[in-house]
Order: sequence, then C-alpha cells, then structure tokens
Amino acid sequence: MKANIITIGDEILIGQIIDTNSAWLGQELTGLGIEIANIYSISDTEEAILSTLDLAIESADLVLITGGLGPTKDDVTKYALNKYFESDTYFDEALYNKISAYFKKRELPLTEYHKVQCYMPSKADILTNNMGTAPGMLFQQNGKVIVSMPGVPHEMKWIFENSLKPKLDQYLNLNYIICQKTIKTVGIGETRIATMISDVLEEMPDNISVAYLPGTGQVRVRLMSKTLVDNTEIIEDYAQKISDILEHRVYGYGTILLEEAIRDLFLKKRLTLSTAESCTGGYLAHRITSVSGSSGYYMGSFITYDNNFKQQFLNVSEDTLKEHGAVSEATVKEMLKGLLSQTNTDIGISISGIAGPGGGTEEKPVGTIWLAYGNKSEMRTKKLQLNKDREKNIENTTIAAFNLLRLFVQETYN
Amino acid sequence: MKANIITIGDEILIGQIIDTNSAWLGQELTGLGIEIANIYSISDTEEAILSTLDLAIESADLVLITGGLGPTKDDVTKYALNKYFESDTYFDEALYNKISAYFKKRELPLTEYHKVQCYMPSKADILTNNMGTAPGMLFQQNGKVIVSMPGVPHEMKWIFENSLKPKLDQYLNLNYIICQKTIKTVGIGETRIATMISDVLEEMPDNISVAYLPGTGQVRVRLMSKTLVDNTEIIEDYAQKISDILEHRVYGYGTILLEEAIRDLFLKKRLTLSTAESCTGGYLAHRITSVSGSSGYYMGSFITYDNNFKQQFLNVSEDTLKEHGAVSEATVKEMLKGLLSQTNTDIGISISGIAGPGGGTEEKPVGTIWLAYGNKSEMRTKKLQLNKDREKNIENTTIAAFNLLRLFVQETYN
Repeated sequence: MKANIITIGDEILIGQIIDTNSAWLGQELTGLGIEIANIYSISDTEEAILSTLDLAIESADLVLITGGLGPTKDDVTKYALNKYFESDTYFDEALYNKISAYFKKRELPLTEYHKVQCYMPSKADILTNNMGTAPGMLFQQNGKVIVSMPGVPHEMKWIFENSLKPKLDQYLNLNYIICQKTIKTVGIGETRIATMISDVLEEMPDNISVAYLPGTGQVRVRLMSKTLVDNTEIIEDYAQKISDILEHRVYGYGTILLEEAIRDLFLKKRLTLSTAESCTGGYLAHRITSVSGSSGYYMGSFITYDNNFKQQFLNVSEDTLKEHGAVSEATVKEMLKGLLSQTNTDIGISISGIAGPGGGTEEKPVGTIWLAYGNKSEMRTKKLQLNKDREKNIENTTIAAFNLLRLFVQETYN
Repeated sequence: MKANIITIGDEILIGQIIDTNSAWLGQELTGLGIEIANIYSISDTEEAILSTLDLAIESADLVLITGGLGPTKDDVTKYALNKYFESDTYFDEALYNKISAYFKKRELPLTEYHKVQCYMPSKADILTNNMGTAPGMLFQQNGKVIVSMPGVPHEMKWIFENSLKPKLDQYLNLNYIICQKTIKTVGIGETRIATMISDVLEEMPDNISVAYLPGTGQVRVRLMSKTLVDNTEIIEDYAQKISDILEHRVYGYGTILLEEAIRDLFLKKRLTLSTAESCTGGYLAHRITSVSGSSGYYMGSFITYDNNFKQQFLNVSEDTLKEHGAVSEATVKEMLKGLLSQTNTDIGISISGIAGPGGGTEEKPVGTIWLAYGNKSEMRTKKLQLNKDREKNIENTTIAAFNLLRLFVQETYN
C-alpha cells in the first residue's frame, strides 16, 4: 500500500511558508502502515495540478492533496479535480446552510465566494470539515483513492482524523489491522536503547517492527504490526517489557509531550514549582507554560540574566560570583537556595551556563551549563557539556531540566 | 528561468523531520528572480532519484538536490548521479587531506566511509563545503544545471551562499541583473500597507515588482527588479519613498529580526530593559535572549505566573487583584511600577492576559491581554483583543510588546 502527497500553493514554492502538512500526514500514514512514495509541492495552476495528478495516481494507491480549497478565485484545485475526474457539480444546500449559520453566529459577512464554494463535485464523497468552510472531497478511480483537503493545518488535520481515517480501511480494502504503541523516552540515546532492549527485540515476533524516532534529548520507540489478526495485546506486552528495561527513561506513551508529563506529575503529587534561569533566558518557563493547565502547579520564574539580578533577587553572593563565576556549581546552588527561601514553592530548579556563540573560555567552553534542583531539604546539581549552537544548547538544557525535575519528584515523593 | 528542487530522504517522507531546506531555497531562488516550478520529496533509492531527475530536468533550467550525501551506505545520491550523467569517479586527494586535517584537529576517528566520500564524479564541478565533509557537485547537461548538496541545513546554506550563488549567473547565462530590497514592518497589515503606498506603486516603473510577505504581526515588503541594467539606485529610491510613508512601522531592511532591531536600538541608546510576564510565561524573555548580544542590555524578568508572585515580588496589591482581576490595566500598571522600583533598569514592560484555551469570561474573553510599559517618569498601557489559540496569542503578544518598546524608546530618547 503506497501513498503520494501533493501540496498545492505558490506560498510553499517561494518559501513564504514551510510545509508542515506533509510531515504530519507522513507520520499519520506511516502509523497506518502505508508507505509514502513521494511528496510533490506544486503551483496552484490547473496545468500543474492535472499533470501531477497523473504522476501521483500512477505510482500509488492513495493520493492525499492539501491546499487550494479556500474561497478565493486563486484556488483552482476543485475545478482541476472536476476536470480530471470528468465530474459535474451540484449546489450543496446543506453545506450552504451550515456555512450561513456559522457566519451568522459570528456576525461575519457571507460573500459570493462562499456560495461558489458550495458547488461540490457529484463524483466525490464529501468529507465533513467542522473547522472551516471548505469540506474535503474523496474520489475513487480504478480502486485508487484520491482525497483533497484544505491547506490550513488545523482544518486538514480535523478532516483527516474525523472524516477520513475512520473510513480509510474500507475505502482502500485494507485487509490488515494496524496495531501500534509508541514509548516516549528522555535522557537516553537511540543506540543505548537498542542495546538495552536487544534481547526483547530478538524474541519479538517478526511481524512486529520497531522504529526509533529521535528528537532533541528524546527518542520515541514505536512498536507496530500489520497483521490479519488483532495484535494489540502482544504489542502491549512487548511495550511493557521494554518499559520495564528502560525504567525511569520512559515518561509516557503515545503523543504525550514531556511538558505535559511534568504537569501531570506535579498535579498528581500536589507539588508546586518555581524556576530561576540565566542562560536559557525564559525558554524553560515558556515550555512549561506552553501547555494549558500549567498554572495549576507552576508559580513563576526569576530570569536573572544579569549578575546584579542574581545578587539582588536570588541572594547570590558577590564573593561566589567573583570566585567561581556565574557559570558554576556554587552559583546555581545559591540561585536555587535563594529561589526556594524567597518563594513558597515545593520544588525549584536553577540554570546558569554559556549558551554561545560567544562567551566561552579555555576552562569553561561554550556549552558549559550548570543546573541545581531540589527542595528545601535536598539539593542536587548537574553539569552539562553541550555544543556550539546557541539555539540547540538552550533547547537541550531545557529538556535536561525537565528530566532532572521528573526524576527528582519520582524518587523523592513516591 | 525555472528551477525544481528535489529533497532526498525517507525521514522527510515519514514525517520524522520537516523539510525546511526547500523553503529556504525557495526564498533564495525567488530573490534571484528564478521561479520554482516543483518541489519533490523522494525516497533515497536509486530508482526514485533517477526517475525524478528525468522529470525535474525536463521542466526546469536549474535543479537543486539536497540530501543523501552523508558518509553512510544509505546515501545513494552520488552513485545515482554518476549513473545518470554517465560519469567516472576520481579520488580527490585535496578533499581527503582537508577532511583528515579536520578530524585530526578535533581528535575524531577517520573511518573507511570518509575515504569513500572522497571519490568524486569527473563530470562534476566541486562546490566547496566548509561546514562538513561532503562537498556539493554541479553537473551541466544541454545548458541545464543540476546541483547536489548535503541535506544538513547549515552545510547546504553555506554551499549555496558561498560556492554556488556567486557563480550561478555565469553557469545559467542569466543575462539580467537582480536588484532587490526588503523593508521589514511591524504592527501594520498587508492591506493597509498596500493602501498607504498605492501612489508610490503607481509611479514605480513596471519592471520593479512588489511582494508582501506576511508573518506573525509583521509584513515584509520586497521590491525587486530583473533587468539588463543595474537598478540598485532606483530600488533604493523607492524603498526610501515607501519607508517615508510607512514611517515608524519600518524597523529595518533585509534579514534583520525584530529582536535584533530592539537589541541594536537599546545598545545604541545605552538603555537597559527588564520585563514582567504573566500569560506569555517567559516567551518574551526567550525571544529577547534568543539573539546573542542581548546580555548587553537585557537584565532579566519576573515571570509572575501565580498571583502570589505578583503580590510578593512586584508589589501588586491584593485589593487591585480582587477589584480588577489579574488581567486588568490596574494590575499591569502595578506590575510595571513594582518592576521598575525594584530593579535598576531604564525601561520595563509588564504583561498579563488570558492566553487560552480556558480561563475566559463574558467580560474578559480568551485573548484579552493588557500591557504596561515605560520608564520611571512615563507609563503607558495597551489592551490587545486576540483570538482563541494559546500559541498564537503568546506569539502575537510578544511581537506587540517588542513594537511598543521600540516606539516608546524612539519617541522618548531621541
């Protein structure tokens, strides 16, 4: 089973926007056991659409098209599809009523464009879009399935998940069942995971495959099977065996984010957190607060970028800064001590380092980062030696901070 | 003049990484007046590479290939290219010596793979890569140019900018000169800009085109000409005329970032900045500190996510919080007052709002944001009414904050 993806729009070709739809669809299709053969990004002209459709349909069973379905005249996708599949159109009264009601409720003006949008191809199955005005369309030809969806990411995702995915196996006559489980790990590399779980992998049935999907400081381990019978239980069993070996490196399953796992852990243990950042400059606070519900445990942060701030607000002593420097174990310890003594929070973490690209010395090169974390009765420290890239250093430090907090809470409050 | 881009690698197809190279190249080529016809993302198999090369060369004058040039056996691009262009290979002694020296200096082991990497196609011109071990390769066929570069973004960009771009007009016999200037604006929409500068656009010669490139809270206005004579001065003239009309909405030219413009402004005026954030949760501090050199003017931030923190560290009164709520003009004013009175910084800004998706009320819906900014003698406030999306609200608020600070400093310290 193979798929091709076509993304339509000049704004992608000229680099005005980065195509994230393809990557999302690529992950989803891979998760369904469908191989992606090609991704084509093309101009929104009838000629480009028709010639690419020819190519794409020839080499795949499923073609997913995104973009070119908005209410403006630039969007020629629907007309090209009608031409390609030699389809008539009809006025979709129900769709028009739905759009009218939506606009009325929001007191927005309904234009002639929206009416034009309601002429749908008679040869297409309509895929409901609850996130916008343009529905998806599904065509079938010689056993192949061609789907067109709008390019707005949240609309496309909604249609794929709610209107297409549940029906896909019946459209494509998929005679297999996909079972999968993704184990989310942090603080351990791909090679080390593979070595640790090699015995389990050896005894695992051949029809279960394993994939390692690396991200910054994190690796997802995905078990998947494509079989005629339901393998859910076997996959669950092996995921459990692997988790037992990887132990504390596993922070969750599926699509959970590390910052969500931290939030859930702190809320469950009824603990509060505050932070003190120097070189990460607020990125840790940003990641913590990027998930909703964080206000339930996160109190705030002192971004003491300047050394005077470290002294004035976290009581770091001038002697410590002079003797050991701002990037030192002694300084992060005093930052944490100051943070915990001044705030009424249970857990704290402090960070100071050289993010780069400048500021490194022979003794403390760029990428030297110190962290201190703990509560009023126990304080731990950690030194990281990272690389030259400012952005990566800030991100890696933040992931490490999350992991240190997670392990400290798990060990201390069980 | 048309170009096609081919990105090679299964990691793109399965959505493990998002292809940012194409967007970058799309912008660069557009800037050179070259139209991008298609972007193909394909598997790293010889078959896929050969068949896509056929397609891509047929419909364009220039084909840029990224990916598939690393030192591992998975990377078949070079072999496919040799086959396609019927090219022999030779051992590039100079390249091998360069790589050996690089590895020796960094005390890294040189493997057999690196030796294999030094066999280069005799039909290709070599494009030096100072950022990694795999150089780029340029083939010519029937007046068309085919370039292969590694997929690692900073290597690809270095090769394009340093080894390819300076020679491209001679390879492609570009008989025109590209002149362009990009005006960076903030706090004004595309339609409003177009209306304001319509008179200038009318008198502008037909061979100068204008493009509006929107981003979050920002619009880039690009003037470009593709002519036989050098239009630099005329373009500069019109950029100046447009800037004169747009006035304070223009913060810079070319590729400068808003956070860099802010840094440069504060450093030039020798002013220091501190911040107090609630709903943006550290994102403003993160954006400020994401550019190096920010430590020259930025002191730090109080992330008072919790109301107790607002009271304890910024002296916001309990009465104010009770009477007006945390999201109110009165609260952000007290936050700013507390910030400036406690720190020894020249300028401050405070933010409190409802980022969403939860927490809205009839009176204060999600997206209500208050900001206060100024110095010890003058305090200004601003209310934003944004939308439902947490991530977008945080980003838009941060851009607005940058702009308010910029305008305040420009007006107050000239």
